[in-house]
Amino acid sequence: MKPLVDEIYRKKSFLCLGLDTDMYKIPKHLLLKPDPVFAFNKSMIDSLSELIVAVKINLAFYEENGAEGWLSLEKTMMYLNSNYPKIFTIADAKRGDIGNTSDKYAKAFFDKLGFDSITVSPYMGKDSIEPFLKYKHKKTILLALTSNTGSDDFQFLNTSSSKLYEQVIMKSMTWEGSENLMYVVGATKSEYIKSVRELVPNSFILVPGVGAQGGSISEVFNNGANDDVGIIINSSRAILYAGSGKDFVDKSILIAKSYQKEMIELINSKS
Amino acid sequence: MKPLVDEIYRKKSFLCLGLDTDMYKIPKHLLLKPDPVFAFNKSMIDSLSELIVAVKINLAFYEENGAEGWLSLEKTMMYLNSNYPKIFTIADAKRGDIGNTSDKYAKAFFDKLGFDSITVSPYMGKDSIEPFLKYKHKKTILLALTSNTGSDDFQFLNTSSSKLYEQVIMKSMTWEGSENLMYVVGATKSEYIKSVRELVPNSFILVPGVGAQGGSISEVFNNGANDDVGIIINSSRAILYAGSGKDFVDKSILIAKSYQKEMIELINSKS
Repeated sequence: MKPLVDEIYRKKSFLCLGLDTDMYKIPKHLLLKPDPVFAFNKSMIDSLSELIVAVKINLAFYEENGAEGWLSLEKTMMYLNSNYPKIFTIADAKRGDIGNTSDKYAKAFFDKLGFDSITVSPYMGKDSIEPFLKYKHKKTILLALTSNTGSDDFQFLNTSSSKLYEQVIMKSMTWEGSENLMYVVGATKSEYIKSVRELVPNSFILVPGVGAQGGSISEVFNNGANDDVGIIINSSRAILYAGSGKDFVDKSILIAKSYQKEMIELINSKS
Repeated sequence: MKPLVDEIYRKKSFLCLGLDTDMYKIPKHLLLKPDPVFAFNKSMIDSLSELIVAVKINLAFYEENGAEGWLSLEKTMMYLNSNYPKIFTIADAKRGDIGNTSDKYAKAFFDKLGFDSITVSPYMGKDSIEPFLKYKHKKTILLALTSNTGSDDFQFLNTSSSKLYEQVIMKSMTWEGSENLMYVVGATKSEYIKSVRELVPNSFILVPGVGAQGGSISEVFNNGANDDVGIIINSSRAILYAGSGKDFVDKSILIAKSYQKEMIELINSKS
């Protein structure tokens, strides 16, 4: 894996840029470019590269544009891996299927696209996740507790011994290659981040829900940080669409800087 | 929705062709074609169209080939919708994410690619599925009980009142647009198909696991059929890779016919 922890301490940031790039929301003048989605992504990455340690790409926003969207995705990944090889990349794809199908997904995202990690859904259990865990230098990010209202439907169900999301975490630690696991925990549930941290003291936690989805950086940090910081906080819409004119990049930098300023203080307070 | 039930009775078949098309497994002579995956799919569809009522496309096999794979997928869907508009199409994609992301997935698969249905994962609950259910003429196929060994990990967990997969089914029936739901139930658990059928007397059940994954057509039918038949049984590898020479199509037809022959008898025995 890329030196994520080193980068967190060097940049004093655990911010992840979520590239939920929406053709209908990016500044109008970019629509004249041959690939507006890639042009927008490139601007965001170039201008925020010193403020972020990770980039999370939400597949739905690319699939919406069909094969063309998949091309924008390939170009974005190639650009990231060539120019910013230390930025940790996350395919936010929520995949998971029977073994031979998960094998193909692992190949698609790790080998073909060159992502460092992928988000996966636990419902189908062990043999749907282990094909991802076989990749020694890649991370697999398991949905544990999500930030949407529907998370109440199943994740909080009481099972014989504990809540479902706790069973998901505990069981996942017995899977082969479990040292390559990270976990998704929504920021709107920061009171639960503490309990997840107790279950997985050494794993990284990806927190998707800061910004438009609510959630406070300091609360997440205070409940979930470990000695490696061990947290990546994502922000998508709040950064991406901060501006809509020619100066859109400056507006995005302002928002990202405000997040990262809070992170500097939190990281400094620890050391 | 397309007249699925009419087609089942007209063709005397509830067979679904699973296009898990693998570049490394298709007949070598097709690799000379400009798009071998599409060429193979077209051959399969043209030769099996009267034996099948549905086509299920497993996304992983296309994503493995990147943007090029997505192009093969678009071509396959365009070909199906133009030439066989009555064949019911299933995107086996196992998607599911927070609301605005699921919205994008629904657009990608229903609007852009023109699928009739998509498989989705329940873990994130109601608001991750309802964006799909909004499409009145489309079906959303919820993972309930899968056929892989990992299904034991969570799907059979006891919750306060019943097993998790039963909670998933019961809860899903309260969601807005639930009349557009179908359910995935693995054939290796045919003893459970009966209990699922009792929970959802009128919904279609997609059974993915006949053929390479084991499972018997008659057992599934006897435990799960309703007055509309109400079952679609998928077979992928056993049909697709029955042959590897120039006569590959004939070999595939033989296997598909053997399945459909059993189905004719089962459907006739009902009426």
